[in-house]
Amino acid sequence: MKYSFASRTASLLSSPMRLIRENAVRDSFISLAEELPAEELFPIKLLKESVHTVFKAGPEALQYGEYEGYRPLREWLAAEWEQRKYITVHTEHILLTTGSQQAIDLVIRLLVNPGDTVLVENPTSPGCLQVLGAQGARVVGLPSDKDGVLLEALKAGIQSEHPKLFFAAPSFSNPTGSLWSAERRKEVLELCRQAGVLIVEDDSYGDLHFGRRSKNDFTKDYPSLFSLDGAGQGGSVLYIGSFSKTVAPALRIGWAAGPSELIRAMSSLKQMADMQSSTLNQRLLYQLLVESGFDFHNHLALLNREYETRLKLMLELLKRPAWQDASYIMPQGGMYLWVELPGALDSLALLKAALPKGVAFLPGPLCTAGAGGEHFIRLNFSHPGRDELLMGMNLIGESIGEFTARS
Amino acid sequence: MKYSFASRTASLLSSPMRLIRENAVRDSFISLAEELPAEELFPIKLLKESVHTVFKAGPEALQYGEYEGYRPLREWLAAEWEQRKYITVHTEHILLTTGSQQAIDLVIRLLVNPGDTVLVENPTSPGCLQVLGAQGARVVGLPSDKDGVLLEALKAGIQSEHPKLFFAAPSFSNPTGSLWSAERRKEVLELCRQAGVLIVEDDSYGDLHFGRRSKNDFTKDYPSLFSLDGAGQGGSVLYIGSFSKTVAPALRIGWAAGPSELIRAMSSLKQMADMQSSTLNQRLLYQLLVESGFDFHNHLALLNREYETRLKLMLELLKRPAWQDASYIMPQGGMYLWVELPGALDSLALLKAALPKGVAFLPGPLCTAGAGGEHFIRLNFSHPGRDELLMGMNLIGESIGEFTARS
Repeated sequence: MKYSFASRTASLLSSPMRLIRENAVRDSFISLAEELPAEELFPIKLLKESVHTVFKAGPEALQYGEYEGYRPLREWLAAEWEQRKYITVHTEHILLTTGSQQAIDLVIRLLVNPGDTVLVENPTSPGCLQVLGAQGARVVGLPSDKDGVLLEALKAGIQSEHPKLFFAAPSFSNPTGSLWSAERRKEVLELCRQAGVLIVEDDSYGDLHFGRRSKNDFTKDYPSLFSLDGAGQGGSVLYIGSFSKTVAPALRIGWAAGPSELIRAMSSLKQMADMQSSTLNQRLLYQLLVESGFDFHNHLALLNREYETRLKLMLELLKRPAWQDASYIMPQGGMYLWVELPGALDSLALLKAALPKGVAFLPGPLCTAGAGGEHFIRLNFSHPGRDELLMGMNLIGESIGEFTARS
Repeated sequence: MKYSFASRTASLLSSPMRLIRENAVRDSFISLAEELPAEELFPIKLLKESVHTVFKAGPEALQYGEYEGYRPLREWLAAEWEQRKYITVHTEHILLTTGSQQAIDLVIRLLVNPGDTVLVENPTSPGCLQVLGAQGARVVGLPSDKDGVLLEALKAGIQSEHPKLFFAAPSFSNPTGSLWSAERRKEVLELCRQAGVLIVEDDSYGDLHFGRRSKNDFTKDYPSLFSLDGAGQGGSVLYIGSFSKTVAPALRIGWAAGPSELIRAMSSLKQMADMQSSTLNQRLLYQLLVESGFDFHNHLALLNREYETRLKLMLELLKRPAWQDASYIMPQGGMYLWVELPGALDSLALLKAALPKGVAFLPGPLCTAGAGGEHFIRLNFSHPGRDELLMGMNLIGESIGEFTARS
């Protein structure tokens, strides 16, 4: 039988991620392509205690629950943001989702008709680009400097494209790990407000900041667009985030917070998409967060110290001869390094040479709106341990060497 | 700020389910509207032991896992179907989803362009109708008799509408609980095969069969369309199901199984929708299923005996004067009774009268393709205990009485 797929699903089906994942099941394969946190840092012992408490409370933990998500967890989030991020948001304006990827999918499904234009920072999150492609959006990528997206480009994009929304990750974008300045944040918000353009602010990596600053200090210096907008009161920002990178991905817990009209509509759409996220996991996470033995901020500090160490090792390895003339943006946080390959090497060709050696990375085009990104790769430094990182970078270096020797 | 929602999301946002759910948070509110299994029958003690084993195995249970779902669980499913449902299916042709609702959403997103026609049995699952509405499908409802969808209507629908797919639940459809005869199953499959129309077979309630038959006996008498089609080999059936009704909803584990081309594409789409379902929950369910103290078939038999008892009580209550002249289809399994109201009462008007009394049911239009269903309601008998059921049916009866007394 022949199946005829809906238009716009084609791009999904031909993605090089398939190739990477088919290889990744091999023994001792090293993937620097994935979006994985370090599992040896999961708070597994305390989660074990939490699960005990949750089960003891009775069978409701296994039943369907509130469609918007477990209320005490939403209340915890509201209190945490108030204390640490200077955001005052009502519990009703928070929707718990199956990871931040679902929040992105829901808001784009809700707002974007095929042919609508969406502005993104370029490069941007591959997960967001996939959703935009499948929804039939016209995606326009905007350039940035070290302080964030360029205002002039944003202004021109808004004027010429009448975009439906602007997707941005001001704190440690995937893939570049860049950090917008406070000034740029205010200017961008002001511009979008005036033009009536919704900003979807992806803060999935926002808690992973390096340089040993406390969360309060960091948030004072780099307020989220959402807090600058009055946390949903302004109505110009939808705020997306996740516990996948800070606690554990298998809980599948992310959120969207923002204007009540949007949250209500996303909640209806979510019921259609998967009824609701797991009550069990939400109760489990909540229990962990209030567990006396667990301190979320100490845990974040631990992650950030460790990830910064791993990043430094990766930067050391980039000094080796094979990587000569490669350049990169210095990340201030997050989980990725965005590298421009030496000798204008093509990242997809390099991937095909690297896979048989047992290593993978993410080719730049997957993070790029429209054409481009061919000479870039995204490297994950949060997951691989020291040995894996050494080996992985060596193997990619070897592959690069084969190309540069040939030319 | 004004938001302009994508076309076709409007129907979602105005659904009467909102009204029901806003009321359902009230104390001592009785909802016969929801799709809830009985939580007192959850295997909570054994799940507690399973979770212990899963955590002991290490942090991988909390990491991202295989995008298609935890392999041992897919293998368990394949073995179970082989033994109990006479279905031989390769592990690679099974995709684990966040409940069966996600499987429905994914296949419709994958195949249906706005304006494409989809055939459904009428009445049909409200969750499916929501997805079809949001995807912009033209939905054509087909009538049934006691043996299943009417062949002539299906034939005419295929010829005049060139549908993209036919959505059916031959074993205990939501809402009618009807059961197609073996003969009708074969005829429907043959017809769709010849016409090249994909059948999406929703078997979410298929294990909830009454009359104390063993699963093997039941499956021999009522083979799934999927097994008749050679389990994906024929390519004409996509098979959808769930553990939400048979183990626990909060695990959020459903599946799609079928032709490899479809499963691969749905898997890519799923990565875009929510990356993946919870590894933790999948490992937990797997552990329960292989736990020595747990027998899935005994557990199903227990559920089925109890649900049949609850159904009988509901049928008794329908003999009371207020319900006089109400009629219903006798369900052979599942969780719902589909009732035609006495005196051509309007179900939405009745709902509005019943809500202040503290009781809800599902109005028929939510289960109906196009217009219609006004005089029907769906009652859930699996969740309410004896007292709740008595009270709930009395309160609805009271509301009916107010209308019939007036007329």
